[in-house]
Amino acid sequence: MSKNEPSKEKLSTESYKGVRDFYPEDQAFLNYLFATCRTVAKRFGYVEYGASILEPAELYKAKGADNEELVNEQTYTFTDRGGREVTLRPEMTPTVARMVSAKRRELGYPLRLFSIPNLFRYERPQRGRLREHWQLNVDLFGSQTRAADAEIIQVAYEILKAFGAEEKDFVIKLGSRAYIEALAAECALTEEDTRKLVGLLDRKNKIEKSEFEAGLAELGVPLEKLNGEQVPADVQAVLDTLAAGGVGNAVFDPSIVRGFAYYTGVVFEVYDTHKDNNRALFGGGRYDNLTALFDDTPIVGVGFGMGDTMVYHFLEVRGLLPAYSAPTHAYLAVATEAEVPHALAIAGELRAAGVNVAVDFGEKKLADQIKTAVKHSIPYLIVVGANEIASGTFGIRNLLNGTEAPHTREELAAFFLSL
Amino acid sequence: MSKNEPSKEKLSTESYKGVRDFYPEDQAFLNYLFATCRTVAKRFGYVEYGASILEPAELYKAKGADNEELVNEQTYTFTDRGGREVTLRPEMTPTVARMVSAKRRELGYPLRLFSIPNLFRYERPQRGRLREHWQLNVDLFGSQTRAADAEIIQVAYEILKAFGAEEKDFVIKLGSRAYIEALAAECALTEEDTRKLVGLLDRKNKIEKSEFEAGLAELGVPLEKLNGEQVPADVQAVLDTLAAGGVGNAVFDPSIVRGFAYYTGVVFEVYDTHKDNNRALFGGGRYDNLTALFDDTPIVGVGFGMGDTMVYHFLEVRGLLPAYSAPTHAYLAVATEAEVPHALAIAGELRAAGVNVAVDFGEKKLADQIKTAVKHSIPYLIVVGANEIASGTFGIRNLLNGTEAPHTREELAAFFLSL
Repeated sequence: MSKNEPSKEKLSTESYKGVRDFYPEDQAFLNYLFATCRTVAKRFGYVEYGASILEPAELYKAKGADNEELVNEQTYTFTDRGGREVTLRPEMTPTVARMVSAKRRELGYPLRLFSIPNLFRYERPQRGRLREHWQLNVDLFGSQTRAADAEIIQVAYEILKAFGAEEKDFVIKLGSRAYIEALAAECALTEEDTRKLVGLLDRKNKIEKSEFEAGLAELGVPLEKLNGEQVPADVQAVLDTLAAGGVGNAVFDPSIVRGFAYYTGVVFEVYDTHKDNNRALFGGGRYDNLTALFDDTPIVGVGFGMGDTMVYHFLEVRGLLPAYSAPTHAYLAVATEAEVPHALAIAGELRAAGVNVAVDFGEKKLADQIKTAVKHSIPYLIVVGANEIASGTFGIRNLLNGTEAPHTREELAAFFLSL
Repeated sequence: MSKNEPSKEKLSTESYKGVRDFYPEDQAFLNYLFATCRTVAKRFGYVEYGASILEPAELYKAKGADNEELVNEQTYTFTDRGGREVTLRPEMTPTVARMVSAKRRELGYPLRLFSIPNLFRYERPQRGRLREHWQLNVDLFGSQTRAADAEIIQVAYEILKAFGAEEKDFVIKLGSRAYIEALAAECALTEEDTRKLVGLLDRKNKIEKSEFEAGLAELGVPLEKLNGEQVPADVQAVLDTLAAGGVGNAVFDPSIVRGFAYYTGVVFEVYDTHKDNNRALFGGGRYDNLTALFDDTPIVGVGFGMGDTMVYHFLEVRGLLPAYSAPTHAYLAVATEAEVPHALAIAGELRAAGVNVAVDFGEKKLADQIKTAVKHSIPYLIVVGANEIASGTFGIRNLLNGTEAPHTREELAAFFLSL
């Protein structure tokens, strides 16, 4: 084989394992998601920021050896050729805390920030889980008030409403880290037992009631402390503010703890109420010490993150996904290549008026050009041929219902602008 | 020291080397850039797609051993825990070629696609160059015509116009790979000498005229073949179509070759004409064989990429950068914390009407709340105090000129909607 041609093996067209390609219809959903989030976040005075997906690995390892293991096993972390350890960010909160700390004196408070970053996590392929997603992050820095906690939750609520969801579609469960810490103190739990209690609460919805109750009994924590009847003052203040803001589906649930992480106060999770999708959709809470990683005087914060796949499933299960609509208004087909310059001139006139127009270059016969317009979900077609040019009259064909109406060249733009 | 507290060293707030943080004003520029590009691309019938920044490393190595070295040295490439070699994409064209190949039969042609990806390259830190940027990519697949070449160039032209640039601000130089190949054949150049010729042409603007001419003489290529007077037919056809489309600043320049890469036909580069920024801004061209990496029947393509930092400098040098404008219309300050519920109620009314409102939670005195509004560039301030609530009259203060006018609570929304 030594004299043979080198192998011309073809490359796979598959994307890298666990990541997604966004063809136009997929990207259109992402863009709809992003636009809706942006509109609502801005309505509440939030301003967009961004950062690179590359962060120093130390940003995620700072919380101790346990965390270092987590970073090494569950993130994309590698050493660059300058010897720097770098991580593809798995979450945005450390980044925004870093950015706020960096300009702590220049930024005014309360500071409202949002971003829609791409995030990465290392998942073993066999799990079939995604290794990247897009996540809206909304954060409010510099306010200690329960009104700030309530505002963050209300932003989450209004975004779901803006997607077309109703209150019956989801419930917002509020927990309190202060309540759990007070309970642990009351029950004289050791630090290890407190950790066990938090773990047990975190698993509450995934285990049998009996197992949950046995776990509580073993720790010596009375069950009635966790039935949600005694609402702690911090949670009640948030619930009252939410109610005044028209949020009618928020409740206290002491089992909402959101792991140990960096939360310090009121935490919340939004649950889907759909029978086929009954699970926590996303959540957030108060983290008053996170910027202490960078500076002795921390800037208090509260925020949430909401991932794109969660929203997709939440909307899909309810038939709330928006129908795809092509950004192109009109397709100009040509009878022969000779009419391309005419089509380009007409396209130029339409574009100058603000109409989005694609032109076919006439390399295929007309029937195939029309198929292209249909494949691209373009709603209207105009054929540019010798007859049309001579008469100055062009048919605008509605590709959705097959109707066609004649228009003079001068009338074309007005037709599309009136849609 | 063994009994001391563990070191509580603070983390740096700096971003990873060579990447950028986008604070609100920086992000606002990016968003302006993206929005302008989207508007123009859609005007020409292009549809947005996206993909992950993670790609199989083989996608970039496919072009041979030289390229493999380039990939290893100039990209972020690492091996994941599943043994897969993965690259942070340095350019988008291989990705879009992969995606188009994957669905080659489902997609209609001509196929117009655009994306605004984040791209990564490994630069040695001492150079001070960025390791990531955002780049508009516009590509047209499935047309062999010069009209397609012209359209891609016209999209680039219209985007610069949409940014406020005039024709005198830039010049579009067209080259032709076919012309250079024909010239090489005419001069009986070896493959190696052809490569030398392309390299010499690529460096033309960076070296002395005498060096350039000596290089040509050494290769036996007549200088008059490269003065741009004999316009090849493919370039002339593109220039004619551009002229018909109103593009008055496109010229033939045989020295435009855009390296060896994957270009096969007409190529182009947009040059800044400003005396302080005279350089190639961006470019593109025809690549008819790229999808042959994936399939024996390639889908022809033509496209360009335009980076965010290039646009920034192009606009900055001309004073064309848009002024920052906060997305928040009004800041509600409170006389004391007691008025926060009233402020929230007013904010709710304004938001329901479509006004973007930030509320201060009253943790600082009024003067400091106003400073916050000013720091955030919010144009209008409304103070909510006991007097205002009792009288039902609120002053809307213009923070830019200091004027203030009284409005009833019911009139507030109308004021902002009329702006």
